[in-house]
Amino acid sequence: MIIDCHGHYTTAPKALEAYRQQQIAGLTDASQRPAKAPSITDDQIRESLEGAQLKLQRERGTDLTIFSPRAAGMAHHIGDASTSLAWGQVCNDLIHRCCTLYPEKFVGVCQLPQSPGVPPANCVAELERCVLELGFIGCNLNPDPSGGYWKDPPLTDKWWFPFYEKMAELDVPAMIHVSASCNPNFHTTGGHYINGDTTAFMQLITSDLFATFPTLKFIIPHGGGAVPYHWGRYRGIAQDLKRPLLKDHLLRNVYFDTCVYHQPGIDLLTKVIPIDNILFASEMVGAVRGVDPETGHYYDDTKRYVDALTLGANDKQKIFEGNARRVFSRLRIQ
Amino acid sequence: MIIDCHGHYTTAPKALEAYRQQQIAGLTDASQRPAKAPSITDDQIRESLEGAQLKLQRERGTDLTIFSPRAAGMAHHIGDASTSLAWGQVCNDLIHRCCTLYPEKFVGVCQLPQSPGVPPANCVAELERCVLELGFIGCNLNPDPSGGYWKDPPLTDKWWFPFYEKMAELDVPAMIHVSASCNPNFHTTGGHYINGDTTAFMQLITSDLFATFPTLKFIIPHGGGAVPYHWGRYRGIAQDLKRPLLKDHLLRNVYFDTCVYHQPGIDLLTKVIPIDNILFASEMVGAVRGVDPETGHYYDDTKRYVDALTLGANDKQKIFEGNARRVFSRLRIQ
Repeated sequence: MIIDCHGHYTTAPKALEAYRQQQIAGLTDASQRPAKAPSITDDQIRESLEGAQLKLQRERGTDLTIFSPRAAGMAHHIGDASTSLAWGQVCNDLIHRCCTLYPEKFVGVCQLPQSPGVPPANCVAELERCVLELGFIGCNLNPDPSGGYWKDPPLTDKWWFPFYEKMAELDVPAMIHVSASCNPNFHTTGGHYINGDTTAFMQLITSDLFATFPTLKFIIPHGGGAVPYHWGRYRGIAQDLKRPLLKDHLLRNVYFDTCVYHQPGIDLLTKVIPIDNILFASEMVGAVRGVDPETGHYYDDTKRYVDALTLGANDKQKIFEGNARRVFSRLRIQ
Repeated sequence: MIIDCHGHYTTAPKALEAYRQQQIAGLTDASQRPAKAPSITDDQIRESLEGAQLKLQRERGTDLTIFSPRAAGMAHHIGDASTSLAWGQVCNDLIHRCCTLYPEKFVGVCQLPQSPGVPPANCVAELERCVLELGFIGCNLNPDPSGGYWKDPPLTDKWWFPFYEKMAELDVPAMIHVSASCNPNFHTTGGHYINGDTTAFMQLITSDLFATFPTLKFIIPHGGGAVPYHWGRYRGIAQDLKRPLLKDHLLRNVYFDTCVYHQPGIDLLTKVIPIDNILFASEMVGAVRGVDPETGHYYDDTKRYVDALTLGANDKQKIFEGNARRVFSRLRIQ
């Protein structure tokens, strides 16, 4: 089985975005607040997936997508914690419907009701609901709810600990994934996403977070941001800071996905990062939607890059399936 | 000749830091303001360089370092524009003394008197002074004077244009280099530096800056941040945004240095980025000071990684010297 650990519902029916726009309008004009969740039929959900994620799964030969709401859509900087909760529940419920309609093709990961300045403890209840009631197997954790201004404490601060305690108790991993940037300096998918990945990993180097939470598991998406390319820099900085070797310090708890959209990047990733720490992912339908004129294939068809690696079958099985099953320990689909 | 295009005076005599601390104390207590530039003798300068940059040049076989004040020391977020001007002039004058004492070993690049919220036009006079009076050949331009909060406009905004006009007139390039982070989310050399590089490149993708300033030249340090590792992502995002091919859109004006501290990173850099756009650099003595236990050599001895590439002599000459002479067109040392 080939498990894509990083897919977002970027093709949701338009009623979802209309709900969000109503919700945002309602922040300044209460009369516009949406009275109820958006009306979306099962057929609309099927239609939104059949021509997109499901079609690409079939064409590319992947089997199961670990599926979460659109990352840029989380936009935790908008409104307050109640805004994020209402929006997150609508989005998570929709993911649950996708997973229920296609139980062999999708398994859910949730968006959290984060909000700038609000302690992440406020996300515990929604995580529990999604995991225990909806059968979700992980969450997307935004290290910067302010959307590019980085106003909340680093991931290693006690600020986050009550949430980590619940993650550990439920044994679910978090993908560390920022959302839309509202800072004009950062393009969302080209700047902010990659910076968020790099920033998170460097925060972890400086801390002993995993001594406190030895079973916590984080996935750094987009191939780990800049980290594998600068693996020597990070090993060297850790050494200068008198930290343990990165493999001992972080690689029992931190994983990278394969959302790197060219062969040389995947080659480097799999050369410098231990195979046990790499999870197959494509982020389709996502940040890059075109066909690479240099290859004639979709940039985000990352399976082709992994297929092309000169690795043994056992290592490829780990990347495609085994590591995901280990990290997402609540995944039960066979 | 081997030209290292990225070196900072990280080993300056202690009187320089004492001056800075006095200056900072003077921001809240005028009586502590330093009355004059720090007293530093030529012998102190020689001593600070002989056991460090000059020793490493000799040991590694490099010839000339394009030399600028300590990047993290710029700290443009402290005080106001007058603070940054006084501090910048002291630092630049000290670089000039290094270059005068060792005219075959160092050539100067200046720090600018940037300050958050202050238009970069205020940096024109110091750039002119450094280039025309001190013989400097470039500048370090901080894309985030707020030190990790990214409050000023992107590099592509008209906010920066008066400064670019002066750069174009003097024909000097800028290395896009952030300074210290005062945001607890960003480790300075492990987070903020790399994010600054990635951010700048993505800003340039979305704009037509080089149509307006066709002769402007930017160096993105630290191997281009995350950009070469994600070259497929950036090509794909540019394509989705209907921008020209990156090689046509940016690579006539944008260059990457080789401050990537392991062989697989340099291999990738030189595989995906055209050789004409790569400038040799080590950033020594800088962000990473230790010896890599995996190789037995300094992480930042980047010459070894370039030497190990299977490139022709002509391509290596471009990386080591030719490209630097083209980008730093005011460089006259033979």
